Amino acid sequence: MSSFFPPALENLIDGFASLPGIGRKSAQRLAFHLLTLPEGEAEAFAAAILDARSGIHCCPVCQNLTDAELCTVCSSQGRDKETICVVAEPRDVLAIERSREYKGVYHVLHGVLSPMSRIGPDDLRIKELLHRVGDGTVKEVIMATNPDTEGDATAMYISRLLQPFGIRVTRLANGVPVGSNLEYADDATLSRALEGRTDM
Amino acid sequence: MSSFFPPALENLIDGFASLPGIGRKSAQRLAFHLLTLPEGEAEAFAAAILDARSGIHCCPVCQNLTDAELCTVCSSQGRDKETICVVAEPRDVLAIERSREYKGVYHVLHGVLSPMSRIGPDDLRIKELLHRVGDGTVKEVIMATNPDTEGDATAMYISRLLQPFGIRVTRLANGVPVGSNLEYADDATLSRALEGRTDM
Repeated sequence: MSSFFPPALENLIDGFASLPGIGRKSAQRLAFHLLTLPEGEAEAFAAAILDARSGIHCCPVCQNLTDAELCTVCSSQGRDKETICVVAEPRDVLAIERSREYKGVYHVLHGVLSPMSRIGPDDLRIKELLHRVGDGTVKEVIMATNPDTEGDATAMYISRLLQPFGIRVTRLANGVPVGSNLEYADDATLSRALEGRTDM
Repeated sequence: MSSFFPPALENLIDGFASLPGIGRKSAQRLAFHLLTLPEGEAEAFAAAILDARSGIHCCPVCQNLTDAELCTVCSSQGRDKETICVVAEPRDVLAIERSREYKGVYHVLHGVLSPMSRIGPDDLRIKELLHRVGDGTVKEVIMATNPDTEGDATAMYISRLLQPFGIRVTRLANGVPVGSNLEYADDATLSRALEGRTDM
């Protein structure tokens, strides 16, 4: 029954269904929605895709997404170029920027090591990181990949590669989230919070 | 922080976020995914949107989506034109076709009456249905809107409009789903199943 809809519609449903986290049913719903939008809106959406593809590229320094020659962080005079925060994805940069705490620059790996998904070191922007550290201005690299198995393994792998440079390599602290309830904290988080306890 | 991403990327995220059932976070994920697709794939997706918009319209008879002059069901010689099954959405046609039970034709309302969402009779393809019934070949109209409040109200409203034509107007049976477990059936379904019990 997959050929029940007209080919152009099937094609659009296939397009949506190929996106991550969108199943066949959702893809149908989204395709029908696009077909019922007022004149011009679906066209604007298609144009947004094309514009984003043609206008957006990776910053040659930190590999974050940008539409300028350098990204806003790398081109800013006010950022501390001696500290690099290494994150897995561009959205992680946004999360850390939101804390308004960090004044250094970033490096986006565009993924984490994942043998299950066949993502190895060459699929990440690790060479670019080593190249940046190699020029001698960097004093500290903060590994801010997610505190899960793959994120930890990626942080560990990169920290070993950074050892020869003799710079400080740190990892984001693990612990109980601010405003959370101890009762609902998992064992691993609590034990890390105890390990990393600070003096008051 | 909403202007943290380059405008072209923000624009694409906004586009995804405007689709039904897609929140800001999912929209970000989808936009990033499109940016990392191999050359040509994102462009093909944009083209699929434009093709679907330009090539697909409503069948002038049954209002289902089609890329031909008439839809496949209306243009088929083998379908019983005396029976019209009225559904809310094009996807409902697909669901009923999948049962391989129905040999009549369809009428797609493109929605249901919903005072909360300000969808009244003029927003649905009801006039077109009355026009079809008015030409005298139709003997039965099966109301196959969803068995929920709005679907029931829509079926009731249309069945009243059809009364003057003196044709048979029916509603899909309610009851316990085939292969389901009585234990988990809700009260309303069970009481409808009892009401509509059939002789063995």
